[in-house]
Amino acid sequence: MSRKYAIGIDLGGTNLRVALVSEEGEIVRKIKKPSSAQILDSLTESIAEIKAEKVAGIGLGTAGLIDRKNGRVYASPNLHAVEGIDLSTELRRRFNVPVFIENDGNAAALGEKIGGAGKSFDSFVLLTLGTGIGGGIIHGGRLLKVASEIGHMSINSDAEKCPCGNVGCLENYASARAMIARAVAMIEKGTESLLKECCKGNIYKLSPEDIYKAALEGDTLSREILRDAGKYLGVGLANIINIMSPEAIILAGGLIGAWNIYVQEAIKEASRRAFKDLFDSVKILPSSLRDNAGVIGAACLVFLSLSGENLQRYHY
Amino acid sequence: MSRKYAIGIDLGGTNLRVALVSEEGEIVRKIKKPSSAQILDSLTESIAEIKAEKVAGIGLGTAGLIDRKNGRVYASPNLHAVEGIDLSTELRRRFNVPVFIENDGNAAALGEKIGGAGKSFDSFVLLTLGTGIGGGIIHGGRLLKVASEIGHMSINSDAEKCPCGNVGCLENYASARAMIARAVAMIEKGTESLLKECCKGNIYKLSPEDIYKAALEGDTLSREILRDAGKYLGVGLANIINIMSPEAIILAGGLIGAWNIYVQEAIKEASRRAFKDLFDSVKILPSSLRDNAGVIGAACLVFLSLSGENLQRYHY
Repeated sequence: MSRKYAIGIDLGGTNLRVALVSEEGEIVRKIKKPSSAQILDSLTESIAEIKAEKVAGIGLGTAGLIDRKNGRVYASPNLHAVEGIDLSTELRRRFNVPVFIENDGNAAALGEKIGGAGKSFDSFVLLTLGTGIGGGIIHGGRLLKVASEIGHMSINSDAEKCPCGNVGCLENYASARAMIARAVAMIEKGTESLLKECCKGNIYKLSPEDIYKAALEGDTLSREILRDAGKYLGVGLANIINIMSPEAIILAGGLIGAWNIYVQEAIKEASRRAFKDLFDSVKILPSSLRDNAGVIGAACLVFLSLSGENLQRYHY
Repeated sequence: MSRKYAIGIDLGGTNLRVALVSEEGEIVRKIKKPSSAQILDSLTESIAEIKAEKVAGIGLGTAGLIDRKNGRVYASPNLHAVEGIDLSTELRRRFNVPVFIENDGNAAALGEKIGGAGKSFDSFVLLTLGTGIGGGIIHGGRLLKVASEIGHMSINSDAEKCPCGNVGCLENYASARAMIARAVAMIEKGTESLLKECCKGNIYKLSPEDIYKAALEGDTLSREILRDAGKYLGVGLANIINIMSPEAIILAGGLIGAWNIYVQEAIKEASRRAFKDLFDSVKILPSSLRDNAGVIGAACLVFLSLSGENLQRYHY
């Protein structure tokens, strides 16, 4: 039998990623480009560019809430371009192959389960730590097809409103967006910081990397921002541990670059908060597929669905 | 083939419940008595009293964190009597039948799935609202064998410490214990309230029923306490909805007696906070097995384990 291929798409962040992935979970070709408002045309172009003679299907991981009954996206506060378009029907029509859709955090969790840091765990929770905070839950070796909007869990119920409608969401304290907003606000208030010299003095262009770099150089504000964000991430980790008691928590996304301050602080805080016996049984570790978890997981949606097998029996 | 029976035990609250349950999920006989420090002897006596000629096994639902590998209880902040005893080995030795152990919220969720309000749902979260707050999660028709300590999810990460070690746990705002503590504190501060006339003037004996009754009679303090507790319960519901996007949330425990104020307020708050599309797809409804969910679910642990079948195929 010939090797099978699928297209995996990751519409999770500010970039879109499209890859041709083999049944073994290997990336054959991959395109990464900035997301645009013309998402459907942009996707069609990229798929056409990397498609092999024959693909078994298209798997799509996207930010937002998935309407699983109708294969659509309900709402996507961080990626409005996908709202209201029937992406799966359109892609099916254009390429004449089956299309499967999932939340991007869920797709990344599936990717890590199949070929990444989650391979040897029967249950784990994946958190994507970037502009926003997303998640995916593996239990009993399978992906839980749930919203897993862990970033929109309220951890300060009487605090400030989140654009999602909730109040005091984890994402407002522990995401890159939250850190940058705080840095800008503090500098505007006159706080001294090395960050003022970044981006040629344009603080509105600050990135989490700038904050981490300044922190390593001893900048007080940057260290404080990373530590506080880490502390709140730890609140989120403790909540996950107390509810899901997973074998592992896998952390992904750009912010894990700041592991030594941000994540270490989070682990310390979680250890203070979660039930001791549960904390002692959980491993907290970084994603191993990094940027590729989403496209690999998305492609696997195709292989898993077509094989009719469950995840545990499907060997990569 | 003759009918099968199992013993179901619920060590969830201030009372212990032991029942003889048929394979069809019917309670043949049941004993309910206050929990004591001599829990093992108390259980042995009750089991001996109601045991039929032959039972297939004993299922035990208990407050606390379950060490599933060793069939023991790690820690049980609300029921210290079960900590450090090897209940399953002891019961196995005394009755010479297999013994299965689960968290009490999980057992109740299983009970509701098999013969209660959760029968027709593939996925739901059960919350037990009493002295403390517990939970259980059904997904894909099966019980998730996780801690599901939903009452120990922090919803106010910078607030007061919870005895569990975490800070600002849901249980500290929305449980019976929290309501009573607030009533006592307010009355001690001199707040006028009908509650002062309850329990022959001994406010340290107040119950949630007293608060609900006073609220129905127009008592301002009681209404405020129930509404605020309900609001925080709503924060918890929204978090559950955003993460687990269940088909239903089933509410159990003594506090659902105050449905018209406490739960209604919770539903209103959850509707304001959770993602609209997810909130619109969830049904929030009361337990139908009430007090019996725990013992029925515990007995079902036996039937399910012995049949080797999964929950969906096992018909009651």
